[in-house]
Amino acid sequence: MIQRLAVVGVGLLGGSVALAARAQGVAREIVGVGRDRARLEAPLRAGAVDRVTTDLAQGVHDADVVVLAATVLANERLLAEAWGALPAAALVTDVGSTKRGIVDVAARLAAAVPRTFVGSHPMAGSEKSGYGVARADLFHGATVIVTPTDASAPAAVKGVTSLWEALGARVSVLDPDTHDRVVAAISHLPHVAAWALVEAVGRFEPAALAFAARGFKDTTRIAASDPAMWTDILLGNRDAVVASLAAFRGAFDDLERLIASGDRSGIEAWLVRIKSQREAVA
Amino acid sequence: MIQRLAVVGVGLLGGSVALAARAQGVAREIVGVGRDRARLEAPLRAGAVDRVTTDLAQGVHDADVVVLAATVLANERLLAEAWGALPAAALVTDVGSTKRGIVDVAARLAAAVPRTFVGSHPMAGSEKSGYGVARADLFHGATVIVTPTDASAPAAVKGVTSLWEALGARVSVLDPDTHDRVVAAISHLPHVAAWALVEAVGRFEPAALAFAARGFKDTTRIAASDPAMWTDILLGNRDAVVASLAAFRGAFDDLERLIASGDRSGIEAWLVRIKSQREAVA
Repeated sequence: MIQRLAVVGVGLLGGSVALAARAQGVAREIVGVGRDRARLEAPLRAGAVDRVTTDLAQGVHDADVVVLAATVLANERLLAEAWGALPAAALVTDVGSTKRGIVDVAARLAAAVPRTFVGSHPMAGSEKSGYGVARADLFHGATVIVTPTDASAPAAVKGVTSLWEALGARVSVLDPDTHDRVVAAISHLPHVAAWALVEAVGRFEPAALAFAARGFKDTTRIAASDPAMWTDILLGNRDAVVASLAAFRGAFDDLERLIASGDRSGIEAWLVRIKSQREAVA
Repeated sequence: MIQRLAVVGVGLLGGSVALAARAQGVAREIVGVGRDRARLEAPLRAGAVDRVTTDLAQGVHDADVVVLAATVLANERLLAEAWGALPAAALVTDVGSTKRGIVDVAARLAAAVPRTFVGSHPMAGSEKSGYGVARADLFHGATVIVTPTDASAPAAVKGVTSLWEALGARVSVLDPDTHDRVVAAISHLPHVAAWALVEAVGRFEPAALAFAARGFKDTTRIAASDPAMWTDILLGNRDAVVASLAAFRGAFDDLERLIASGDRSGIEAWLVRIKSQREAVA
């Protein structure tokens, strides 16, 4: 049982952490921290949080668990700002979709003042954002990747794992670099492909958008994701993203060569192989 | 009212034409034509068709409307094979996703023996195929693009349009070349991007597939489409597909350059623009 849970950034993910923690009786008191007092009204009125503050130090100074749920780069800044105000026994985690950056920030901070951070990435985002779309069951059955380092205390890893499991998630553990390559491949690269698809249609044959059917809509749904959040993610994971784009270009070029040369059996062999790879994805 | 409707190829689309025509009382008799007698049993037993044959000439010789519903290249071959057996008053259409090829075949055949063909493309496909997934309401609310040429008789265009409208579809008219660019942009290019995505993840970080969430699954759903059918489509629309791939590469390269150079405001401006373009797609 958590005595006091501070959620910093009460949007889709932070709001869902608060709602799920409330629903599961995980925390005795839940504090919502945000920049904009007016935006904290909805979770406060709904009872998702017990009190709210725009003062970060005030919000975390008596918390035993802190969840940073702003954007990736904002979380790094917030971690540095909050660090000095944290109780010695506090456990801090985040919900950002890239991990090398914030894990490095935490390591630098801990070298000066020993406090405990273990990164988390709940794979339960959406192209929508804000507390209005938060749900108590958002993490139910979702995968959360927890990213300790060699320096992480086993008890801290266990604490973060237990928190997510209590909120209904399945936890996988990866080191921060492997995590960042995995999400580049499975999430960031598909976003770039979806953005490039929408842009390419606009350049090539704008009239085509009127004929968009389910295939195009599904393939480009994530192209409507939040621009500010995704700019942060792409820059926060730049090296892995750029490497994944190179892998995509290689695959795309190979397939284009087969099409341009009219290599029927080569194309079909590719498509058979890809179909079975895709069907193996649960 | 059609006296005799021949459906050549009774799979997802042909089977759905038969089921919808039956449900709407569009045709007095429906004949199912296929290569494999065993595969014609299911639509015959279900009453989707009244009789079946593996003899194409036999199937079309007394039809007033013929719908070719095999793959794109097979339809071109079947059109040539059936042409001599068609009654003079017959109206032939198809359901293929590329149109320049079959429209040219029909024009060459008509120069020797005058018969009437007007191409159609119902945008109601699926990554699944076969009669087992055919539905009487497949075309309900779907868009069908009808592709007459300058040589097409207005009555024939009207006849094909009326058929699709009777089956529940909305009809748009495009010339064959514009149609082929539109489908390259909206359908063929997204397939190539989805195939390249699955391949790229396999090359870059195979472990990532275990973490695939909704974004990756939606973006790559069409990568499981039927390989033989899609090999035909890509080769049948090769020029427009290759041109659309070049447009995609241009967009992808531009976005990659912004990411690699860490151009925060440039990335965000792109993403804002793309988000609004994507949200404008109904």
